[in-house]
Amino acid sequence: MTSYTAAVFPRPNAPIEFREFREPELEPGAALLHTLYSEVCGTDVHLHHGKLSGVPYPIIPGHVSIGVIAKMRGKLKTVNGDNLREGDVVTFLDVHETCGACYQCLVADQPTRCPSRKVYGITYSAHEGLLGGWSEAIYMKPGVKMIHIPKELSAETFIGGGCGLVTALHAVDMSRIRLGESIAVLGAGPVGQSVVALASLSGAGEVVAIDGVQQRLAFAAQMGATNTFDLAHARVDRLTLARSLTSGRGFDIVIEASGNPDAVSEALDLVRDGGRVVVCGHYTDNGSVDIHPHWQINRKHVELRGCWGSRYEHFHRAVEIASRFGGEKPWAQMAGRTYELADVASALAAVANRSAVKAVVRLNPAKADTD
Amino acid sequence: MTSYTAAVFPRPNAPIEFREFREPELEPGAALLHTLYSEVCGTDVHLHHGKLSGVPYPIIPGHVSIGVIAKMRGKLKTVNGDNLREGDVVTFLDVHETCGACYQCLVADQPTRCPSRKVYGITYSAHEGLLGGWSEAIYMKPGVKMIHIPKELSAETFIGGGCGLVTALHAVDMSRIRLGESIAVLGAGPVGQSVVALASLSGAGEVVAIDGVQQRLAFAAQMGATNTFDLAHARVDRLTLARSLTSGRGFDIVIEASGNPDAVSEALDLVRDGGRVVVCGHYTDNGSVDIHPHWQINRKHVELRGCWGSRYEHFHRAVEIASRFGGEKPWAQMAGRTYELADVASALAAVANRSAVKAVVRLNPAKADTD
Amino acid sequence: MTSYTAAVFPRPNAPIEFREFREPELEPGAALLHTLYSEVCGTDVHLHHGKLSGVPYPIIPGHVSIGVIAKMRGKLKTVNGDNLREGDVVTFLDVHETCGACYQCLVADQPTRCPSRKVYGITYSAHEGLLGGWSEAIYMKPGVKMIHIPKELSAETFIGGGCGLVTALHAVDMSRIRLGESIAVLGAGPVGQSVVALASLSGAGEVVAIDGVQQRLAFAAQMGATNTFDLAHARVDRLTLARSLTSGRGFDIVIEASGNPDAVSEALDLVRDGGRVVVCGHYTDNGSVDIHPHWQINRKHVELRGCWGSRYEHFHRAVEIASRFGGEKPWAQMAGRTYELADVASALAAVANRSAVKAVVRLNPAKADTD
Amino acid sequence: MTSYTAAVFPRPNAPIEFREFREPELEPGAALLHTLYSEVCGTDVHLHHGKLSGVPYPIIPGHVSIGVIAKMRGKLKTVNGDNLREGDVVTFLDVHETCGACYQCLVADQPTRCPSRKVYGITYSAHEGLLGGWSEAIYMKPGVKMIHIPKELSAETFIGGGCGLVTALHAVDMSRIRLGESIAVLGAGPVGQSVVALASLSGAGEVVAIDGVQQRLAFAAQMGATNTFDLAHARVDRLTLARSLTSGRGFDIVIEASGNPDAVSEALDLVRDGGRVVVCGHYTDNGSVDIHPHWQINRKHVELRGCWGSRYEHFHRAVEIASRFGGEKPWAQMAGRTYELADVASALAAVANRSAVKAVVRLNPAKADTD
Repeated sequence: MTSYTAAVFPRPNAPIEFREFREPELEPGAALLHTLYSEVCGTDVHLHHGKLSGVPYPIIPGHVSIGVIAKMRGKLKTVNGDNLREGDVVTFLDVHETCGACYQCLVADQPTRCPSRKVYGITYSAHEGLLGGWSEAIYMKPGVKMIHIPKELSAETFIGGGCGLVTALHAVDMSRIRLGESIAVLGAGPVGQSVVALASLSGAGEVVAIDGVQQRLAFAAQMGATNTFDLAHARVDRLTLARSLTSGRGFDIVIEASGNPDAVSEALDLVRDGGRVVVCGHYTDNGSVDIHPHWQINRKHVELRGCWGSRYEHFHRAVEIASRFGGEKPWAQMAGRTYELADVASALAAVANRSAVKAVVRLNPAKADTD
Repeated sequence: MTSYTAAVFPRPNAPIEFREFREPELEPGAALLHTLYSEVCGTDVHLHHGKLSGVPYPIIPGHVSIGVIAKMRGKLKTVNGDNLREGDVVTFLDVHETCGACYQCLVADQPTRCPSRKVYGITYSAHEGLLGGWSEAIYMKPGVKMIHIPKELSAETFIGGGCGLVTALHAVDMSRIRLGESIAVLGAGPVGQSVVALASLSGAGEVVAIDGVQQRLAFAAQMGATNTFDLAHARVDRLTLARSLTSGRGFDIVIEASGNPDAVSEALDLVRDGGRVVVCGHYTDNGSVDIHPHWQINRKHVELRGCWGSRYEHFHRAVEIASRFGGEKPWAQMAGRTYELADVASALAAVANRSAVKAVVRLNPAKADTD
Repeated sequence: MTSYTAAVFPRPNAPIEFREFREPELEPGAALLHTLYSEVCGTDVHLHHGKLSGVPYPIIPGHVSIGVIAKMRGKLKTVNGDNLREGDVVTFLDVHETCGACYQCLVADQPTRCPSRKVYGITYSAHEGLLGGWSEAIYMKPGVKMIHIPKELSAETFIGGGCGLVTALHAVDMSRIRLGESIAVLGAGPVGQSVVALASLSGAGEVVAIDGVQQRLAFAAQMGATNTFDLAHARVDRLTLARSLTSGRGFDIVIEASGNPDAVSEALDLVRDGGRVVVCGHYTDNGSVDIHPHWQINRKHVELRGCWGSRYEHFHRAVEIASRFGGEKPWAQMAGRTYELADVASALAAVANRSAVKAVVRLNPAKADTD
Repeated sequence: MTSYTAAVFPRPNAPIEFREFREPELEPGAALLHTLYSEVCGTDVHLHHGKLSGVPYPIIPGHVSIGVIAKMRGKLKTVNGDNLREGDVVTFLDVHETCGACYQCLVADQPTRCPSRKVYGITYSAHEGLLGGWSEAIYMKPGVKMIHIPKELSAETFIGGGCGLVTALHAVDMSRIRLGESIAVLGAGPVGQSVVALASLSGAGEVVAIDGVQQRLAFAAQMGATNTFDLAHARVDRLTLARSLTSGRGFDIVIEASGNPDAVSEALDLVRDGGRVVVCGHYTDNGSVDIHPHWQINRKHVELRGCWGSRYEHFHRAVEIASRFGGEKPWAQMAGRTYELADVASALAAVANRSAVKAVVRLNPAKADTD
């Protein structure tokens, strides 16, 4: 009987364990992927440290992944209406069980706030099965939305972008960039890097990345940043630099992707009067920040928006965008190194200590080669 | 030779003085109004205490006013294209000298941030002439935008709404209320009262006014509030009340019109996930507030907008709206009492100690009667 | 064994037949309503004449209905999260089987264009069961979205508004009315009457209804129209009238709710430069119209939007809006007469010959009384 | 005494004349440009044939131009706040005298519909002075908005884009392109070519140009079109091609830039359900077109917008965009040939017979060289 190895967080702050799982029987409408790639991102570090609430440990981490369909039960189609077949290389929306029947889904039109939604690699327990990407196989529950990795898209490009690319697309959509507008991106982690790339592809004018890690700034320049500011500069100097690039006015748009509460206040300083700020970096609770309503909100005539999670739409379009522009932007190089599943603890450590922007786990290499 | 009496703030924190001004000679395109009404609002209290920067004391306060055209030089028209004539009862946009030639006016399309703009009753010095409403006459510089008080609009209604009505319209426009949506209004001063009235006229569902003064809440109910919360309740109880009115979700819209920094944080608590917050109460610096980006912005998926000043458009439409709906909403009663110019210090004191929502100064009553 | 009588369109242009249906067995998640009210609208006339494509005759007409839950299998909840119980008076979204898994549902965010959607009373065959409202009972398939008729909402008010109210809310949302804006409504049928009512509740300024039937115009005035234009006036005279009401500019908003192709051209004439036109009256093919791109589109700087169907959101909010404002607007009187099921052919004839704005069928009166 | 030669349209359908104009005396705030470049576009062809109403012949054509400031009276600044100096190379907004005091300017916020606006090269008579670009010198009336051609922008690039670039930016802004969306551009003249370039810079996915002239399609491919359709294909085949590129759905966006009424109907066919159409090609009256409200508007759930003229904002940002992206898109090559002023009739003929996308007149070459 076939079995699969998966990496498991048994409980917060405990070492990763490797456990064997039997191949599951498929329900109607379900499928099994042989994993090719899964990612290691900041959320996994938070999960390891128990910083998210409501996580049903033990869990198999890994929310965005790519795999080959090994088995499926019944006829399955993508949202595009294309048939799915065994052997197809696909990725899937990690968010599942959005109910489609609650106020958030149907009246407020914001399924990212649906109370029923579950997330592969985060809110499914390992007791429920192979429901995370750090595993040789992933169980696609009936209704999970798979989509093909098209020929013109390398798997390395898409997994390099990963969940950060999808979140970045949501934030960039929210910012409504127009041709030639200036934008600052606070935080050059996986989300910030993709914000830089997508802003650049959107025809932004100045695209400034701000971070404290020199290699991240260098990578942001490859992604399309026209300028970078090092956090080693005092905050007031960053403001001066910002004004010097924008005829004294500040940026048309600032996107906060750092998770640092102070960055929200800095975003409100860096944006021009009447500009737009999107906050997408605070997925966990990193504390609070002092805001000055008169100077930073009212008088600024500013628009500030919080951006939580992503809709299927962002995931779908992220695949299309990476397919079309993957040759122009080095998503494939964003993960400094590719790790074996056995070595996933090192990948996690590299992300935790910021020696890598992000990390990627590669599995079943023979299967990828045959496709 | 004719002269006019005006009330003057000679310098911050000094008693009001009454000074005589000679009737000015009119430049081409200018006019002279005999004042009928001017208002006393919170900004005048701030001006009296020197809390606004860049004010060229001595000044004649009074920004929104109504008068009769006593003289004019040349042919003048309203924005509607109607001719202005001596004897017409008009009001005028207090903001003047917006340049129409700078980045804010022409590229960012936000003339409220034009650095050239000046405001009657605030940023003109008494040395420059009769450029404030607490005066028997007001000098209309060439290009000041006058508009008729139509027959169906009582002067008491429009001056009762006053600058708060115009600001409220800007904020309500920004909130994009849709039929049946719920709204909370923090602060039931002149702006908040008009927000309540305009939200009610817009077909909002629940309209909740929140304030610490019982008479203000009672007046808000007359303006259309479906519920009122007293600040005597603990903040957490206000949140509980809010949820009980909104199926546990919070308000679709919250408009902050209090000037209290804490109200910005409370607005973010009271609004539902994905809702909209407009901050229009912080026209002066009342300090800062602690905000929690994870819980109050990012995870809330919220939109928050600062609303600074008003455009001519809001003033123009405010006259139309007050004309049409003045019979339905008691703007005319918002000013508890009407004061003589000689008694304007009492009016100011009443506003300062919150014994009145706002106050109105009445002048030249004989002239109003003859029209 | 219980059976129920239903009115059936056996095929296009054939007389209505009355057929008996056995009480269906309930699938898990299903329910059975004893019908209290169903409506007769223009779509039913089109169905009777075979003017819609893809209709699986024989059908039981009647898309918007109200009933009492007679039986249910399993625990059911509304979108608000409230439990549904036997004896509850409810209405339900006639559109069902929107898939939630296609490009229209998930990427384009326009479920009204989902190719899987089916509609009670229109696209279900009578062979499939009691899936239309002209019947003593209606079968609620699993997942059909029921919602309570709240105590403060009379059933007569909601059925009076009916499908026209829901469509009108969609169109009015699309038009983004702001306080004081002027609006013309072309066509004073069930949709147009509710557009008038909702525009009035939204704080529109001039609300002008245009139709050729005098009683409809009189009713529109009760709904909140500030003016009415009779089609007996020449089109050029209507334009002159329009300009005289709008300082020569035309309406800020025009909503076409007539189904007459010429009305689309007239809407483009009546709207002001830069105004908004919503076309919601062309649910069937009534032919084409000559449009002049230079004068009517490009130079007008106009926005024109087509409005197809409704989302659950509009239905949900329509119930809330009718609950809150049902006392202010005479939706309950919109159906001139209430018919017995046996007399539904007369109801249909009254709608077809325009002697009534709409008609309502009343069933099971004893059941309504006991609730 | 200095005099300048200008080309003049004496009246409709008459040959161009060359007339001498004395150097004008400068009013305060005025300036005189020595022209370096002016353009010849389709509007000039219409002017030559008398197809625009209200043109005060004789006129000096040429609306978008570049020149060197030869003289100025008083201190002048750009909208950016930069000082203007003699010897500076500038361009200027051809639209002047927008009043800033009418309903269109101040309430509707659409200065392109201001009844006072005048346009250099179109609505000023040659009797009023050097108010068109086909002239050795152009008189800058007080208040005309000049802006520097920055060092990184070649004059050839900006004049190559010319008025079509500014119009295209307005249309592309209106279309609200999001990353990866598909767009079709009907008409590959000067406006259409810039729409293609700007859509490509905005990160559009498929960018399809449709025209009947093969060289225009080839040039569109250089501008960034991913596909081109020749009008030699039947309209139904173009629809088939369109669907094959868009998973059967049609384009997210269609921009009509052809001036052909039929193109408006085709745009409504080519766009997907719920997509956006912008009509910017109908600056003159080319007749009407049959539209089918049911199929093309209502059921399509489509948004269609007319785009008239441009605001200063578009002109300002067009300079910035051409500066930043002029190296990526061959605007400088769009004008097939550069003509001497003496040869402007040949330039006009080339545009009229479509042997060139557009043409450029070059003047005072010595002056350009010394700068």
